Amino acid sequence: MDISIERSILEANDSVAEELKKLFAEHKVLVLNLISSPGSGKTSLLEKTLSDLREEFKMGVIEGDCQTDNDAKRVAATGAKAVQINTDGGCHLDSKMVRDVIKNFDLSELDILFIENVGNLVCPVEFDCGEDAKIALLSAAEGDDKPEKYPRLFQLAHAMIINKVDLLDYVDFDVAKAAKFGKALNKDIEVFEVSCRTKQGLDSWYAWLRKQVALKQQ
Amino acid sequence: MDISIERSILEANDSVAEELKKLFAEHKVLVLNLISSPGSGKTSLLEKTLSDLREEFKMGVIEGDCQTDNDAKRVAATGAKAVQINTDGGCHLDSKMVRDVIKNFDLSELDILFIENVGNLVCPVEFDCGEDAKIALLSAAEGDDKPEKYPRLFQLAHAMIINKVDLLDYVDFDVAKAAKFGKALNKDIEVFEVSCRTKQGLDSWYAWLRKQVALKQQ
Repeated sequence: MDISIERSILEANDSVAEELKKLFAEHKVLVLNLISSPGSGKTSLLEKTLSDLREEFKMGVIEGDCQTDNDAKRVAATGAKAVQINTDGGCHLDSKMVRDVIKNFDLSELDILFIENVGNLVCPVEFDCGEDAKIALLSAAEGDDKPEKYPRLFQLAHAMIINKVDLLDYVDFDVAKAAKFGKALNKDIEVFEVSCRTKQGLDSWYAWLRKQVALKQQ
Repeated sequence: MDISIERSILEANDSVAEELKKLFAEHKVLVLNLISSPGSGKTSLLEKTLSDLREEFKMGVIEGDCQTDNDAKRVAATGAKAVQINTDGGCHLDSKMVRDVIKNFDLSELDILFIENVGNLVCPVEFDCGEDAKIALLSAAEGDDKPEKYPRLFQLAHAMIINKVDLLDYVDFDVAKAAKFGKALNKDIEVFEVSCRTKQGLDSWYAWLRKQVALKQQ
């Protein structure tokens, strides 16, 4: 693509993202943009988090998918408000899509808004959706070299969640190596090892979430 | 993105892809474009295929990655010629990138050229690289709903390879359901269930490859 076109698209996106950041700051809503390959477990992580913390926080979800509202239905089954964006084949969410659906939420009622991006380790990374932090997910079935091969997400993310650690006995995945690649790209990245299936490690993720909400609501 | 810009990018891509198709037809080289999420096992499938069929076919590989030449090294270790394209963060290969590296191969010496695309279920689908067929890979750890959620690839692919079936006992993945979604999108798609780890199912894939080479060399 012509670089000047690409730049103007990203500048337009950033300008709307700034509007959103002000709106979210005003209402002290923590906004987290979940980014991963298809099938790393973003929706499973949300299902667990929304169920386990439902007494503690008021949470909403924007679900991004190329097609179907399967994920919004899964998430809504926990009782949380979920709004689906179908990109109709588009490879990422952008700030305008988020702005278009934000009126469906009463922000004064929310502590956390999760944005589940389209499953894609590349394109969503460049499009700020007004979030406080990007959260990178990686499944233990995907290979420990993913931070090295798709570095941009891990450079920008505040947390890296290695999911499906219940599969570690059956796959060639070195958790220490993946974490080392992540930390080499971004020394401040928090690394969590979890299994949404067995619930292993979710408590550390919840503790981190509590800290981020407290910081946002200061 | 402005639709007219997008159209002109795709038209320019198609025009170079046509040039490549003529070149590949002239040399009777079967060209297969492997597309999947990051970590579905494209490189593992190539390692097995290149090793197991090395006496039978002359094969080359174009490796696409955002960063690193890890995959080209893995593939070259089988003895096959491999050329790496680093997209420097770009989310797909295109026909111009393929044209730029094709001079590294002696096409008159090749039976099969594999193009391993950037790990991404969305963007690579629209960019024809001059291939005879797109091959969709899906790992059993990714979820059986992927054809439904990312339909475009499965509509266009000639084959759908469900890899990592050795994990089926440990994940919630219904092979019949995934195959049914694939077939609903594209009744002619061939479905293979394989494990590159245990070599289960690879023989059917090899039989299909032999048939495609024979058709191309008629």
